[in-house]
Amino acid sequence: MKKLINSPEHLVVESMEGFVAAHLDLVQAHFNPNYIIRADAPVKKKVAIISGGGSGHEPMHGGYVGEGMLDAACPGAVFTSPTPDQMYEASKAAHGGAGVLHIVKNYTGDVLNFEMAADLLRADGIEVESVIIDDDVAVKDSLYTAGRRGVGATVLAEKITGGAAAAGWGLKDVADICRKVNANARSMGVALTSCTVPHVGKPTFDLPEDQYELGIGIHGEPGRTRLPLESADKIVERMMEPIISDLPFKSGDEVLLFVNGMGGTPVLELYVLYRKAQQLAAKAGLKVVRNLVGPYMTSLEMAGASITLLKLDDTLKKYWDAPVNTPALRWGK
Amino acid sequence: MKKLINSPEHLVVESMEGFVAAHLDLVQAHFNPNYIIRADAPVKKKVAIISGGGSGHEPMHGGYVGEGMLDAACPGAVFTSPTPDQMYEASKAAHGGAGVLHIVKNYTGDVLNFEMAADLLRADGIEVESVIIDDDVAVKDSLYTAGRRGVGATVLAEKITGGAAAAGWGLKDVADICRKVNANARSMGVALTSCTVPHVGKPTFDLPEDQYELGIGIHGEPGRTRLPLESADKIVERMMEPIISDLPFKSGDEVLLFVNGMGGTPVLELYVLYRKAQQLAAKAGLKVVRNLVGPYMTSLEMAGASITLLKLDDTLKKYWDAPVNTPALRWGK
Repeated sequence: MKKLINSPEHLVVESMEGFVAAHLDLVQAHFNPNYIIRADAPVKKKVAIISGGGSGHEPMHGGYVGEGMLDAACPGAVFTSPTPDQMYEASKAAHGGAGVLHIVKNYTGDVLNFEMAADLLRADGIEVESVIIDDDVAVKDSLYTAGRRGVGATVLAEKITGGAAAAGWGLKDVADICRKVNANARSMGVALTSCTVPHVGKPTFDLPEDQYELGIGIHGEPGRTRLPLESADKIVERMMEPIISDLPFKSGDEVLLFVNGMGGTPVLELYVLYRKAQQLAAKAGLKVVRNLVGPYMTSLEMAGASITLLKLDDTLKKYWDAPVNTPALRWGK
Repeated sequence: MKKLINSPEHLVVESMEGFVAAHLDLVQAHFNPNYIIRADAPVKKKVAIISGGGSGHEPMHGGYVGEGMLDAACPGAVFTSPTPDQMYEASKAAHGGAGVLHIVKNYTGDVLNFEMAADLLRADGIEVESVIIDDDVAVKDSLYTAGRRGVGATVLAEKITGGAAAAGWGLKDVADICRKVNANARSMGVALTSCTVPHVGKPTFDLPEDQYELGIGIHGEPGRTRLPLESADKIVERMMEPIISDLPFKSGDEVLLFVNGMGGTPVLELYVLYRKAQQLAAKAGLKVVRNLVGPYMTSLEMAGASITLLKLDDTLKKYWDAPVNTPALRWGK
């Protein structure tokens, strides 16, 4: 295993330490339990938005903490759910009096632990709404998940709900717009290589030199099928068809097209995927009016990519465009 | 070779097509010869800043075209210098009447081709200044370079000169601040793995499973030495010592600390490096008042990282902080 780390045991905490040292103007860290929180938390009278999940998917979620996006993020060990006390303490610290929204990717550990934290918070008299993200069309059930997995839509949901919360929306409305993002989004991913979880020390799975996995999960969970390596255009076709037909997206829809790198795939290649995905969207009559291209939700050093399509309306566009100032995503001011 | 491409021959052009499709509000592309140029070029009476180099280092340079940074970028084939006609045509199209600055990384092909383009431009009556970036302290001469190689300081020079040009500075002054950035910056890199140039089809070099290369170049050029894999902290020590002693940086200096990912190293690890680099800077009495952490100048999917230290003054800080709006870097408005 070749990694730029000191030890698997200290990786997450040392990375958090470096992260907050680099972004002191935006975020602070709390240790034991571990969470990243806005430097100016709690923001009074604003709905607090909390997310979290296993580490290894950076910049998600800590990179999205800041004005116009998350109030706090709870990083678990690599590819391991954070614990309920992380979510509980982060939510309490971020709570500004207007309630808390938990954005939860649909992995069984995440779901259970966020539920437990929500129960504790409610016992303290804090209002909590939870939204589960499950946008991955690849498989019905998966290694760590009952139902569909939560993938790229999470980034979009965090941005859009963050914009709505910053605009002063109430808890129920912020939760509802989060549910709308999830309902309107569909995703699928592919992997060309595995990745190595540091405390495991060897690749999560083996993928022969001439094959790729269609429908991969962000922890290397099996997808739909393994296929002989094909052209980028053909691979994009195989992802876009199930994405478009699942919602279904319809001719005339305005969409956001998100091409996400899994970590080990160069940006040069991501734009080759974007090119074809946009052509296929146009062929289906979809209007790509917003986009995001880059490694925004990774799987350590895995070579691969995912595509997410989000059907937009004026409200979703407005809060996608709203100012954001986080370590990993910023624009508008 | 596992890559998300259609063919090595079409990779750069298809990636450019996807890139401009995604960022139409900021950039446009010209093909034959190939360049990326600001959507609103030429900007009248502003010094035009042009850079370029082999592809495979994304988001450099196309990702830095836009308000407050580059006016145009010329991508060569992967790890191959662009041709003089690219730089000539890009410069002519970007020229707004106030002259042209070429920012050139010190690789022999880049230097020669930019020189040829500058001669052609001068023959057309266009004023040209060229600044060669050579911040890599690892080795004196290298595989493709006489003298030191140009690495991380390039990103910083493009941002700071872009800010000065946007503020209305004249050509000579913009070139001078670019020279100052180069004079004040020192860098060094390490690699844990090689990368595969698509038209070659096999890894550029072999690096045994238990070794890393200290002082690697961004095309995999040999560094100072190969060492048994060590802790991240030890590796950062081996990079920071020659960087700090070379300028030399002195106690009390204000610096920008740039930890750059080579492509295949997760952001989780980059922050572990940042943590130690900042500690060592502090130990040397340096004040890290600005930073940049992420894959901003890559070597395809190479696992590795580089560190750049830039000594700051009030002017450099001012133009580092100035608004920028490009596909890969944006803040401030």
